Amino acid sequence: MYPKRFEDLIHAFQKLPGVGEKTAQRYAYTVLDWNEEERETFIHAISHMKEGIHRCKICGNLSDGELCDICSDENRNHHMICVVQSPKDIQSFESMQEYDGVYHVLNGTINIQKGILPDQLNIESLKNRIESENIEEIILATDPTVDGETTALYLEKMFKNHVKVTRLAYGIPMGSHLDYADSLTLLKAFENRK
Amino acid sequence: MYPKRFEDLIHAFQKLPGVGEKTAQRYAYTVLDWNEEERETFIHAISHMKEGIHRCKICGNLSDGELCDICSDENRNHHMICVVQSPKDIQSFESMQEYDGVYHVLNGTINIQKGILPDQLNIESLKNRIESENIEEIILATDPTVDGETTALYLEKMFKNHVKVTRLAYGIPMGSHLDYADSLTLLKAFENRK
Repeated sequence: MYPKRFEDLIHAFQKLPGVGEKTAQRYAYTVLDWNEEERETFIHAISHMKEGIHRCKICGNLSDGELCDICSDENRNHHMICVVQSPKDIQSFESMQEYDGVYHVLNGTINIQKGILPDQLNIESLKNRIESENIEEIILATDPTVDGETTALYLEKMFKNHVKVTRLAYGIPMGSHLDYADSLTLLKAFENRK
Repeated sequence: MYPKRFEDLIHAFQKLPGVGEKTAQRYAYTVLDWNEEERETFIHAISHMKEGIHRCKICGNLSDGELCDICSDENRNHHMICVVQSPKDIQSFESMQEYDGVYHVLNGTINIQKGILPDQLNIESLKNRIESENIEEIILATDPTVDGETTALYLEKMFKNHVKVTRLAYGIPMGSHLDYADSLTLLKAFENRK
């Protein structure tokens, strides 16, 4: 029904996460209505992004240069490492405005089925940091999913004899209602009551 | 917090309709994880789209060539024109698989506040079609919004002495519940009861 090029455009947008056909169509129509300049700006942002986006040499966070803002900040506590799956998670922690330690980005989780093994994750460099820097605590902040849990258990086993290893608490999310909590979450909240 | 280029990417995605900061971030992270080829395909779809997407000379629908599939289809009823705001709406009608007439795309609606006057819409060509082709009926299928209604009233006034002009029926949507219908829709459904 649509012109070939328009179909291509719709398919392109469907590659974005959570974008189905309807949304992709909506995006495609919007882009079609853009003027030359708007389209150029959009294309430029995508085609030139890699040039200015680096990974921090220490923690793996996104950065403008060799080190990210956090690792190069002397005011932060460099003896405490929060281990996360992705740079995205750092943003969530930072918006909390409470944690003043540093981070380590694993770049994924262990997933046997997909063939993602520990050596494909950013674990070796975490080991080096723990061995060479004076680390007091690592906080395992992987997602509470099967893969996240597997990864956290793996890291816990690996490091618990070298450094204090903690995990985020599980429980009922603030502002939610008890009857909406799934039973696993409720179980965790019950087990960890104090 | 983010590298400059990454911020640019997030801002670029926020230009898409209904995309806020969170979604834009999610898209940006996805694109960052794409390999060279995936990124090239995406950029190519956007940068080359105009080349292969034309507007039908007759109705203004999106088309591969001079005429769209519908206008060049001899099996369709060319004496009946459904007037819509955008090519998008044609898709909705076509998926109904009931209408066999042709279309006319206005490319928007009259909106005095935004300075969109009738002469900026695809109305002149509609007038030409009504005058030169043997049109029996035009169906005004603009959105049931203030702008859509204004435009439909304008067209109705303009053409009602030359051709049979009809409007889509308003009422309760199928499969919905009465208590969810807004009072204006309910009023329309009540007025047009039969």
